[in-house]
Amino acid sequence: MSSFVDKLKPSEPSGSAIIARERAQSDISVDALSQTLFAGDDYLERQARILPILTAEPLFDKKQQANLSRPDLFKLALARAKLLRRLVDQHGWDINDYKLAETLVDDVSPYFLHMHMFVTTIREQASDEQQAHFMPLIISFKIIGAYAQTELGHGSNVQGIELQARWDPSTKEFILHSPTLTACKWWNGSLGRTANYAIVVAQLLLPKPGMKANEKPEYVSHGPHPFVVQVRDLKTHQPPEGVVIGDIGPKFGYDTIDNAYMLFDNFRIPHSALLCRYAKVNPNTGIYSKPAVPAVVYGTMTYVRSLIVHQSRLGLARAVTIAVRYTSIRRQFKDRDSTNGVERAVLDYPTVQIRVLPLVAATYALHYTGLAMQKIYKDARKEIENGNFSPLASMHSMSSGLKSLSTNMVADGIETCRRALGGHGYGGGSGFTRLSPDYLSRVTVEGDNWMITQQVASYLIKRMGEAAAQSTGADASHLEVFSALNGGSPLQHYDIMNSDEQIVEAFRRRASFLVYGVYADRIVEKKPWTSLMIQLNKVSHAQSITMVVEFFQESLSSHEHLSTTTQAALRNLYRLFAYHHMEREGNDFIRSRAISQCQLDALPGRIQELMAQIRPHAVKLVDSWMIPDYLLDRYTENPTL
Amino acid sequence: MSSFVDKLKPSEPSGSAIIARERAQSDISVDALSQTLFAGDDYLERQARILPILTAEPLFDKKQQANLSRPDLFKLALARAKLLRRLVDQHGWDINDYKLAETLVDDVSPYFLHMHMFVTTIREQASDEQQAHFMPLIISFKIIGAYAQTELGHGSNVQGIELQARWDPSTKEFILHSPTLTACKWWNGSLGRTANYAIVVAQLLLPKPGMKANEKPEYVSHGPHPFVVQVRDLKTHQPPEGVVIGDIGPKFGYDTIDNAYMLFDNFRIPHSALLCRYAKVNPNTGIYSKPAVPAVVYGTMTYVRSLIVHQSRLGLARAVTIAVRYTSIRRQFKDRDSTNGVERAVLDYPTVQIRVLPLVAATYALHYTGLAMQKIYKDARKEIENGNFSPLASMHSMSSGLKSLSTNMVADGIETCRRALGGHGYGGGSGFTRLSPDYLSRVTVEGDNWMITQQVASYLIKRMGEAAAQSTGADASHLEVFSALNGGSPLQHYDIMNSDEQIVEAFRRRASFLVYGVYADRIVEKKPWTSLMIQLNKVSHAQSITMVVEFFQESLSSHEHLSTTTQAALRNLYRLFAYHHMEREGNDFIRSRAISQCQLDALPGRIQELMAQIRPHAVKLVDSWMIPDYLLDRYTENPTL
Repeated sequence: MSSFVDKLKPSEPSGSAIIARERAQSDISVDALSQTLFAGDDYLERQARILPILTAEPLFDKKQQANLSRPDLFKLALARAKLLRRLVDQHGWDINDYKLAETLVDDVSPYFLHMHMFVTTIREQASDEQQAHFMPLIISFKIIGAYAQTELGHGSNVQGIELQARWDPSTKEFILHSPTLTACKWWNGSLGRTANYAIVVAQLLLPKPGMKANEKPEYVSHGPHPFVVQVRDLKTHQPPEGVVIGDIGPKFGYDTIDNAYMLFDNFRIPHSALLCRYAKVNPNTGIYSKPAVPAVVYGTMTYVRSLIVHQSRLGLARAVTIAVRYTSIRRQFKDRDSTNGVERAVLDYPTVQIRVLPLVAATYALHYTGLAMQKIYKDARKEIENGNFSPLASMHSMSSGLKSLSTNMVADGIETCRRALGGHGYGGGSGFTRLSPDYLSRVTVEGDNWMITQQVASYLIKRMGEAAAQSTGADASHLEVFSALNGGSPLQHYDIMNSDEQIVEAFRRRASFLVYGVYADRIVEKKPWTSLMIQLNKVSHAQSITMVVEFFQESLSSHEHLSTTTQAALRNLYRLFAYHHMEREGNDFIRSRAISQCQLDALPGRIQELMAQIRPHAVKLVDSWMIPDYLLDRYTENPTL
Repeated sequence: MSSFVDKLKPSEPSGSAIIARERAQSDISVDALSQTLFAGDDYLERQARILPILTAEPLFDKKQQANLSRPDLFKLALARAKLLRRLVDQHGWDINDYKLAETLVDDVSPYFLHMHMFVTTIREQASDEQQAHFMPLIISFKIIGAYAQTELGHGSNVQGIELQARWDPSTKEFILHSPTLTACKWWNGSLGRTANYAIVVAQLLLPKPGMKANEKPEYVSHGPHPFVVQVRDLKTHQPPEGVVIGDIGPKFGYDTIDNAYMLFDNFRIPHSALLCRYAKVNPNTGIYSKPAVPAVVYGTMTYVRSLIVHQSRLGLARAVTIAVRYTSIRRQFKDRDSTNGVERAVLDYPTVQIRVLPLVAATYALHYTGLAMQKIYKDARKEIENGNFSPLASMHSMSSGLKSLSTNMVADGIETCRRALGGHGYGGGSGFTRLSPDYLSRVTVEGDNWMITQQVASYLIKRMGEAAAQSTGADASHLEVFSALNGGSPLQHYDIMNSDEQIVEAFRRRASFLVYGVYADRIVEKKPWTSLMIQLNKVSHAQSITMVVEFFQESLSSHEHLSTTTQAALRNLYRLFAYHHMEREGNDFIRSRAISQCQLDALPGRIQELMAQIRPHAVKLVDSWMIPDYLLDRYTENPTL
């Protein structure tokens, strides 16, 4: 560009001068806060070690990728995935190193399914013999696997999938067949172009027992089961006759991964293809034996959902880091009541604060929720391994509700942050062009966010049934019965303005009030399940946000070693988070008598005061997430920012 | 693909059988309803005439475009824009034909600014002499123009732009100069690659009057003014020395248009470059004369915002057309309380209805709002042409508030529809991959949606001041004073369950209650403007949604020639729209005593009843928007759907 342009500087004050001033005005120690957030984890050390290795590789440079077509983006991602694999060997990275590197590169990797669902399914559902055969091939990348469950016609309702695996006793093979177009496998990541093996989920059809060899066989379906199937030649990479497979093409996001379609035309696979750790078909008799421990599969889903909950804060942390830094620097308009001619930082406007600062609070809330969820999961896992399956139902409910809540919060929060940047949020340099469309997948994957809230409500209704067993008569009003359940005395409002614990109580009251409501509708009044779905969704949300508030509140006591300013800032974030949600859903807090109308009316003022107190620390509160410029898609000659 | 696949059919019932059944179950006449919606406009005739011309051209085929890189998408869009121009000549299209063709092709055209802002600015701000020179060149496309106002550092605050136009009395030229990097023009559509002319908005700097020739000149800024500047050679297409210009590259959306950066290095332009219909600089004395009618410029902004309001319903109509048809066809899960083994259409689930059906209602609400706004604009325009500028302030407030409200509603509504499709909403075949990111620009362009609500509130506070002039003493409570303003008697709740008019009254009460609140805070208590911004935004929203509800309610009386079913369906949509918003913002309706707690608590049940009544007509209610498959990005061999 012209040398005239090279000499130009931004108008004063410059962005870096402003950010330096922002950092100087807060005495929060970013180091101390980061170390606290990531205590017990070597995340910071790992990031510091891996980042320079990645940024030194030209292939991982992100500057030009937005100019590529989707086919070229996929090729780039595949080349990057291969390079990452080589770096694993070169630097002796462990699996956590590898996963962090994947996160930083920020491609949804063509190897993603191989490294996650494929290996996990083999590990959890293959017999020892099958594992002995496949695990070395997987770990050495001799084969690349995918996971094919979802079909064109069925996603959420797995029981409804149409692909058939029919047992042929004469050859002792299964015959995979897609009877319809809607039976076509669809969306299966890594399978469109990359994988040569796949876990294929199909309806297991076995001949009716006791049939004679010369009868025309009748089949009984035993429901969806996983098979491991080779779908491409290891040398030519071509699918065998009878397998039709390919990439479904461009999507809303996920440009870097090859989601597949796949159909089978009477394709024969051996008996050994059925993953038979739990479910078995006797090759001689064709008799099915049921899984001994079906709950284990259930446990895997819980694990994946709890992982999504834990990861959600990173997506939001990226977004708020960008939004807080940009809105601190961006100046627009002079103060209407001031004679001072200087334009104000847009983050000084309450209309920007109300969008961005509750989301800064949400990153912390989701972080502590993720940590708590991981701990509960690990503890429960130990119980389960000792044969005690009782924590499973609660875990499943919790992970479903929090998956739905956290991914909605983050997907919407990313967009809110993007819009808070005004025009520049729409620009290619915003850092949102990949984050935003890629993250939007999360509201649907691993259980659609609306659909899975039924699972939460279902569990809560059962629990309420236990509690309500000794309740008052059915003639009493909803609130009377609920009040009786709560000890019989008139329900008192909680002192939400002065007590952090009472805030949690108010959320609990609201949630159990709503749970009681659907319990009464469903169990007492026997209303149709479908007619209650909107309420069920609300119940799940209320219960899940209560957990988030509670985990955040509990975390406050773990900050005592931090400076008074830091502790106060975190407490303010906690209250901002809680009040912000309380205000938006005020009516249910009123109806459950958790808070008074007067308290509700005072919330907007209180929220604005809290935001004013948090404002000077905003930059340091996002700095503490330690998101590197590389992950923010930021390229400056001075990458300290 | 394999012949096996060619023979496969979707599982029964097929999508087209389902849609046929959906259409058969409702006796709404789509023809009659469409004709009513588009009465007084030849939209339907125009679409029927133009669509086959477009679909016959291979260049307008959309099937493969999602595979293109952004540079190739731009080239395609430019080729398409040129072809559209040729079709104008070939078929003798008028400007409305051309604009509809642009809409159907669905590229944000590289000629967009030439055809809109450039020609409009010349028409409205150039002198007769300037117009005589430029208009023939513009209309014949001998020159291609753009509009360069926004800079890297300033968008919303136009007064703050930094590009300078300094008058040099010695040569009688203006010197355009970018003193900083933040003065760089940025975002200016059609200018990155296509245009050779631009309206360039710069701070007009004139020497202090009365200075002597040998004094070092001091300059006075007269604020931003528009200049018409040639920025590229008509033959070589290269910028002249002193102009640095280019494409800002990939963005969040808008792949098909070339948004620009542009800097000037002491670039000289003649005196005639200043658009001088209103603002003039005497070339001999360097003396500035103020625009005689500054309000005219203000009027253009109002016009553009009111156009965006009117167009908003089309974006949403596309989204709900897709969502209603897909969720009618898509079956997932059996009814939990039924022994019937058939899976249900997801649109039968209240959790899908509550997302999609209020948005179907919103398309109608926004349609009638757009029509009303256009009519008010035309009437006001006549007044203004007769020298009566009094309607301008109200018009400006109305168009700003409605622009903010409608584009938020549509941008969020498109995403809600996309998610209602579950996994397939994320697919490339969803019809959302271009609609969604392109529409998101609307929440920021022509005034950021949060920022411009201040303009609405400011106007309303002024109006409230007039009304409050004879109010009761300052000691009275907010509600007392407000009640006094409303006639002095205690405020009665409105009968929102039984009266369409009283629903409007309830919205009015809520809005004026909130307006009174900010009036009291700002004018009586003299609180800082900035501290009130969140309330100001709320006030604007409340006022604007009141208008939408009112226009929708007024439209109901224009449907008397339609069948009883159709009228009932539209009335149900009206109520659904109103109740849905009322429920979400319930607390303000309670606080203003527009409705009782009991009414608020009854709303969810009422909403669910309304949705059940609307459900059988949903497909025909979206059919009536007559959105062609071509615009929905749908490609079937049987394009009747």
